[in-house]
Amino acid sequence: MLVSSLLAKKRDGHPLTAEEIRFLVEGFCAGRVADYQMSALAMAICVRGMDARETATLTRAMWKSGISLPRPAADRATGEPPGADGVLRVDKHSTGGLGDKISLVLAPLLAACGGHVPMISGRGLGLTGGTLDKLESIPGFRTNLTQAELNDALRQAGVFIAGATEQIAPADRQLYALRDVTGTVESIPLITASILSKKLAANLDALVIDVKTGGGAFMKTENEATDLAESLVRVGCQCGLPTRAVLSDMDQPLGQAVGNAIEVNEAIEVLRGGLGVTRELTIELGAELLMTTGQCSTRREAQRRLAEAIDDGSAMERFERMVRAQGGALSFPIELAAATVVEAPTSGQIAACDCQAIGEAIVEMGGGRKRKEDSIDHSVGIRVHGRIGERIEKGQPMLTIHCPKARVADYLGPLRQAIRLSQEPVDCRPLVLKKIPSTS
Amino acid sequence: MLVSSLLAKKRDGHPLTAEEIRFLVEGFCAGRVADYQMSALAMAICVRGMDARETATLTRAMWKSGISLPRPAADRATGEPPGADGVLRVDKHSTGGLGDKISLVLAPLLAACGGHVPMISGRGLGLTGGTLDKLESIPGFRTNLTQAELNDALRQAGVFIAGATEQIAPADRQLYALRDVTGTVESIPLITASILSKKLAANLDALVIDVKTGGGAFMKTENEATDLAESLVRVGCQCGLPTRAVLSDMDQPLGQAVGNAIEVNEAIEVLRGGLGVTRELTIELGAELLMTTGQCSTRREAQRRLAEAIDDGSAMERFERMVRAQGGALSFPIELAAATVVEAPTSGQIAACDCQAIGEAIVEMGGGRKRKEDSIDHSVGIRVHGRIGERIEKGQPMLTIHCPKARVADYLGPLRQAIRLSQEPVDCRPLVLKKIPSTS
Repeated sequence: MLVSSLLAKKRDGHPLTAEEIRFLVEGFCAGRVADYQMSALAMAICVRGMDARETATLTRAMWKSGISLPRPAADRATGEPPGADGVLRVDKHSTGGLGDKISLVLAPLLAACGGHVPMISGRGLGLTGGTLDKLESIPGFRTNLTQAELNDALRQAGVFIAGATEQIAPADRQLYALRDVTGTVESIPLITASILSKKLAANLDALVIDVKTGGGAFMKTENEATDLAESLVRVGCQCGLPTRAVLSDMDQPLGQAVGNAIEVNEAIEVLRGGLGVTRELTIELGAELLMTTGQCSTRREAQRRLAEAIDDGSAMERFERMVRAQGGALSFPIELAAATVVEAPTSGQIAACDCQAIGEAIVEMGGGRKRKEDSIDHSVGIRVHGRIGERIEKGQPMLTIHCPKARVADYLGPLRQAIRLSQEPVDCRPLVLKKIPSTS
Repeated sequence: MLVSSLLAKKRDGHPLTAEEIRFLVEGFCAGRVADYQMSALAMAICVRGMDARETATLTRAMWKSGISLPRPAADRATGEPPGADGVLRVDKHSTGGLGDKISLVLAPLLAACGGHVPMISGRGLGLTGGTLDKLESIPGFRTNLTQAELNDALRQAGVFIAGATEQIAPADRQLYALRDVTGTVESIPLITASILSKKLAANLDALVIDVKTGGGAFMKTENEATDLAESLVRVGCQCGLPTRAVLSDMDQPLGQAVGNAIEVNEAIEVLRGGLGVTRELTIELGAELLMTTGQCSTRREAQRRLAEAIDDGSAMERFERMVRAQGGALSFPIELAAATVVEAPTSGQIAACDCQAIGEAIVEMGGGRKRKEDSIDHSVGIRVHGRIGERIEKGQPMLTIHCPKARVADYLGPLRQAIRLSQEPVDCRPLVLKKIPSTS
């Protein structure tokens, strides 16, 4: 097979066969397909797309470019029924949004419900923070575990949250680095293969994907988000991993805290029984998993079980075990940079929240990266007091900015503009917009 | 400017500004834009296209990546009228077809008519032969001349046919190497920029482009060929080079000979006054140039002047001067491999000629390249006796195959199939299908 002919085939909008896709992905890993050929293919896929069959083949080829996490007793590949080793392995993935600290709560919560949660997570990208960056706010917490350390953490805590090792989906790591610099990130087949190749390598029994949509998310419209969610569910299920998706709102940050240490603090508040949208969405996503694995037969039962595991302290106990297993020393709350309160300039309903402006301010303060090699200041952050549709009175705290006093003045102007108040009643869309069930 | 954002812009079908295009081309030459980024851009251009303005900017940026051939007295860039140095500089380019030896005749013929012809030419690509490969059938003939040698040849013979030096449009050379291996050759804007960047560097007063269409050409349909011809004429004229195009038939080889030495022999026959389609098309294309430069005011006058310069021996004299200036030692005819005659199996009209089969046979015999680094056997070739629509009697020579006897049997089967005879009257389309005048 001639690489240039395969690229020309996709360029002209024709589907590639399974053999052709495997030839390209394996060749890329082996160095027979050059970077400049793979980037041209990524561009052709961005513009021409891939059908469901092609996307599944691409996902599988990227998954099989590396190892799968072993399972202690029985393995799904052996044909044993899920959980034949006595423990169900589950995970959640989010497409990323401002203030999204769900993983920090949900991963230990699922472990507390008896599952194993081998969560491979990522760094912050653009304006949305990364779970690994947030966790590194905890002194000593390590996210770059070896394969042996991952297995140990899973045994000790029933959960880990760590970065992908070199052995997991290396084709994805190489391709992602290329896509990032060639304008080929925005493609549903490529995003689907990138997310699922890593999740398939984790050898799961069930996966739920939180697809964010709105001003603070990658997918700005509900239509785009639905397309991505359906692709993820279809391909996940086709590859043998029961997958569901939830579309959730990202027109405002999830919860109040945006940053790194400040989000860990909020996650711990939720693990200690704090109420609000973070708890609400955590339980919604967890319930999808408990129903997928058959641990609960109704949503109501699943929600009750999850709520109990928070309220009786067992989820928090799992979180502490995970932190210890990954080398962290937890003291609550983690210290933040000095606080500056921005008061509401007038009374009114919160009508809009400019996620872009808040995300940019966090990055500018040092809480996110402009370049891959930048280090992160975990202590900066922003608390948004109140959600869209809620009323706020003149002079009440509207935002609390955690940032060294000497620099905070630079951000006050844009951040004041980020919250729009209105005298009219305000419509607010629900937190969960849509649920995409597994396909058989 | 961020390279990935520019690639994403073209990916989404938006036009790039002149500044953006220059940034990419200059960055590519300087190594700031990586191969994998340029190949992704080429793929995006293949699928999304470029408008006339973008194509002209790309052409100009690629041209300006290198030097322009100097002109002895006055330079077009100085604002002097064309030919202010007393000599008009003209050239022809062909998009390539089977048996196309026009350059070998037309270049010296134009020199004989008083022009200077600094012809930068290429190697064979795929099934179509390259003018440089053909000329290298002449013992000693050198096509890799230095800048100084090119100038000397032009002074001595009024014409050279040579490869591009490192200094001529380096952006094109680099980009072409990438396109060749990334399935991004077939794109009208990219082809336009590639052809014209080199021709603009030659500092010409007029250019005619022979766009081939049919089974033996790159552009299979007349519509595709017309689109390319119009793009070439429009962009050439926009860049200040008066350009015309002629669409000519390539449903069968041009003339009888296909190969390397065998085509040089046929070209010399034409330069010595031989009749046929090669002479006919040479004069058509030359007339376009003499009218563009204003050397002749009517097509009839131009045709007469060109025919005279062949018939009085002055074109052949220029050819001999060129061969000497480029180090060649001409003896006519150049020796060919042993001849095997294929006779017509039945009487009938020639109805079709499979250019693909003939081209493949030449490559297989060693007369073309499968890989860039392959060397060429100049002595192999095929003569096709008769053109579509002509009658041939059973037992008359239909093809003569020049190929070592030990190997010729391999090609007899497919080549016999390449000529289809019919008992019905056969329609034959004209040699010149369309003429595209200069735009002002």
